[in-house]
Amino acid sequence: MKKVRETEQAHPLFRQVYEYALNRIERGEWKSHDKLPSIRLLAEELGVHRLTVFKAYRQLTEDGKVYVKDKSGYYVSQGHGQMLVQGFDEGSGVSSYLHSNPMYDIQRIPVKYQFSLALIDPGLLPNLFLSDYVKRVFDMYPKVMGTYASVQGDEELRETLSGHFRKQQHLQLSSGELLITSGAQQAINLIARMMLGPMDSVLIERPTYSVAMDIFRRAGARLVPVEITPEGYDLDEVEALMAKHKPRMFYMNPTHHNPTGYTVPVRQRKLLVELAERYRCLLVEDDPFRDMYFEEEPPPPIFAYDTEGWVVYIGSFSKYVAPGLRICAVACRYPLMERLIKIKSLEDNGTPLLNQKIFLHYYTSPRLQQHLGKLRIALQVQKEIMEQELSQSGWQWETPGGGLTLWVKLPDGTPVDALLRKSLEHSLSFVPGSVFDPLGEMRSWLRLCYSFVSEPLLREGMQKLTALARKL
Amino acid sequence: MKKVRETEQAHPLFRQVYEYALNRIERGEWKSHDKLPSIRLLAEELGVHRLTVFKAYRQLTEDGKVYVKDKSGYYVSQGHGQMLVQGFDEGSGVSSYLHSNPMYDIQRIPVKYQFSLALIDPGLLPNLFLSDYVKRVFDMYPKVMGTYASVQGDEELRETLSGHFRKQQHLQLSSGELLITSGAQQAINLIARMMLGPMDSVLIERPTYSVAMDIFRRAGARLVPVEITPEGYDLDEVEALMAKHKPRMFYMNPTHHNPTGYTVPVRQRKLLVELAERYRCLLVEDDPFRDMYFEEEPPPPIFAYDTEGWVVYIGSFSKYVAPGLRICAVACRYPLMERLIKIKSLEDNGTPLLNQKIFLHYYTSPRLQQHLGKLRIALQVQKEIMEQELSQSGWQWETPGGGLTLWVKLPDGTPVDALLRKSLEHSLSFVPGSVFDPLGEMRSWLRLCYSFVSEPLLREGMQKLTALARKL
Repeated sequence: MKKVRETEQAHPLFRQVYEYALNRIERGEWKSHDKLPSIRLLAEELGVHRLTVFKAYRQLTEDGKVYVKDKSGYYVSQGHGQMLVQGFDEGSGVSSYLHSNPMYDIQRIPVKYQFSLALIDPGLLPNLFLSDYVKRVFDMYPKVMGTYASVQGDEELRETLSGHFRKQQHLQLSSGELLITSGAQQAINLIARMMLGPMDSVLIERPTYSVAMDIFRRAGARLVPVEITPEGYDLDEVEALMAKHKPRMFYMNPTHHNPTGYTVPVRQRKLLVELAERYRCLLVEDDPFRDMYFEEEPPPPIFAYDTEGWVVYIGSFSKYVAPGLRICAVACRYPLMERLIKIKSLEDNGTPLLNQKIFLHYYTSPRLQQHLGKLRIALQVQKEIMEQELSQSGWQWETPGGGLTLWVKLPDGTPVDALLRKSLEHSLSFVPGSVFDPLGEMRSWLRLCYSFVSEPLLREGMQKLTALARKL
Repeated sequence: MKKVRETEQAHPLFRQVYEYALNRIERGEWKSHDKLPSIRLLAEELGVHRLTVFKAYRQLTEDGKVYVKDKSGYYVSQGHGQMLVQGFDEGSGVSSYLHSNPMYDIQRIPVKYQFSLALIDPGLLPNLFLSDYVKRVFDMYPKVMGTYASVQGDEELRETLSGHFRKQQHLQLSSGELLITSGAQQAINLIARMMLGPMDSVLIERPTYSVAMDIFRRAGARLVPVEITPEGYDLDEVEALMAKHKPRMFYMNPTHHNPTGYTVPVRQRKLLVELAERYRCLLVEDDPFRDMYFEEEPPPPIFAYDTEGWVVYIGSFSKYVAPGLRICAVACRYPLMERLIKIKSLEDNGTPLLNQKIFLHYYTSPRLQQHLGKLRIALQVQKEIMEQELSQSGWQWETPGGGLTLWVKLPDGTPVDALLRKSLEHSLSFVPGSVFDPLGEMRSWLRLCYSFVSEPLLREGMQKLTALARKL
């Protein structure tokens, strides 16, 4: 059974036995002072060599999980396996899922003044127009709902998007170098699966998209923060960190960055690719806000400067086309692409074809550009309203060139968590800065999304928020 | 940083350092006879205690990955890190993805006589009628494409499906006990994430759905096969295996089983729940073919007999409603459900709302039952055509009471793999039995799907197939 051997390669056998026993102890199946199965018995049960079990037991002893009595008896140490007594407690690898997801918890609360969701007000999306397209899609592909897409994604869609990337963003790209995923989050997941093992280092921006941190931590990776500022990164610091930590990848959102709105300048984009090559560190470029610019278009993606395949590009448009479709395109080179497809094939065997066809036909419609133009203006107006309302607050922020959020610094010592609690009582929500900070600090910061509520609620809400802050 | 601590709990620190170093060696970043970083240096770099690094290095030495020279120098052993030299080679945990997926490879090949896909001929699905519904859905929810669903799934859909399960299948179920996933495969994935760690045992049927095996192996689990026959399982064997291997779960498809078409009798269903409780083994009941019965309805799901929460039920209808929608409902009790939702929230943050709403409104339509009635007859007719064509072959099979496939035994010694190669040359495909066998045997068996091609292609294809077999 080849696969089993592969798995064993990845985890030497004795460490699998070690973990197996440790799980039994932690789940309380083997309780304090229980005698462990004899080496002979467990070796038989697991079909491994007795020396392998011996090695694992010895390790457990060294780690204080078990103790030896008499000559050959191994017993569970006192106090182990107390906390978890029933059958469903997290097995190894699960525990890291089971933290609460603060951003998700906040966003789930229904409020009148919604400043926590980095989403566009559905009222600003061309829904009715879109639904016409959907109806046409069914006339064009009457059997679309009866058909699975290929794992990599609909060829017609990949052709179209690679063409778009070539034209609009000067990317050298073929349809074979694109993978369609169900949203950017799935893309980050697939890439993490591909690249990360325990103790691997990942460079991430500080602050950064909190869900990405959760995904990398779940993979057992170590997060190494890189400060992002209105000027981009300190590349000397980036190089020093690459040299010191030998990170497997650098997860970045260099264009209208979430939550700050900052954009990394062109000069740095080229240098980052050189650093990636020199230190063999994959750049994972998450780029959902590129088309949401105000005055001027942002610089080309970092992917555009890559020639050696050290950049993976996550291009998602559905935030402003149709978030409900969950369509995202990942661009990378062979052999990465081949691996991503295999991982995707085990994950969900492909993104629904219907969603891909709807997206395709709307995306290629002449109306999209008009819609985009309007949307940019609407978002800029909302941003300016929010800034006006903040102008008297004494709070600090950098006016973003695009995106959906303001990254706001309150006077030091402002109890932002208390402000959030108070705000929720007044049906207003935002995300505290600490959620985006890999170090859990940035306690006087918060992220305000101006994209989801429009005048007059936006004005009202901001007045409430600043008033509440003054009271504290 | 709580999450990191949790991760460390799951993998003792020294083993993370061990794996970290091992990865560097296997990736060829540390090459044969390279000196490893000094204990002090690596301890600093990883921010762990020197003793932890010492422990890891000693383990690497014992495992022959490194050797010691002089007093304190650790060096990479000869021949390690030779095979993997570039940056993208699989990190730990990745290798298990990177096997080929034989079923998927076969199904991908476009052929005229398609007997490898356990899918229903799109021509048998009510596509046009469905598309009317879709159009209505957009009139009902004009903003459906601008909105994310909740992670657990659309409340309206969960209400409807829990009602359906209560009425049709006598399941005690509330909408809170359902999770909507993107297809059954994602459901199996989430459950594996929740339950399985390295060396954990999983009972699986022999033969079984091959993709499930891939998913469990990827989790590092050990597969323990349970024979499935027309009479169901040998419950004494099941109990013995549960007692011996203490499996975390038993993955089963007890109703119109894929690939065999067998159905586990009611009597066994009750007893299986008792065994699950006694041996603390979660039953994972995959049930995609329930509604595809011919003469008589199958017995209720095993989930219906469970009172203690030891069964997870995977109910997918989209095979016969709209495979392209990828809608599946997972039923389980607290606390499992809470865990599944958290895992789903990190995976893709929820299944597209559009797909859920379309499914909902079609599924509740009076037309669905009519469609189903017709579909059952159509499938039964195709099954009978296939059986007629096989009647002279001397091959053996059990007439299934439902489902989409025939599980056929050829005379011993028939080279099924050679038959597949020949068949592909004649634009005909099927899946060899060995693909479904956890032991990789069953070499004289094959799975034939009668659901995807209809008369006369079905007759033609079967005549070609039997003729090719005779020639071999």
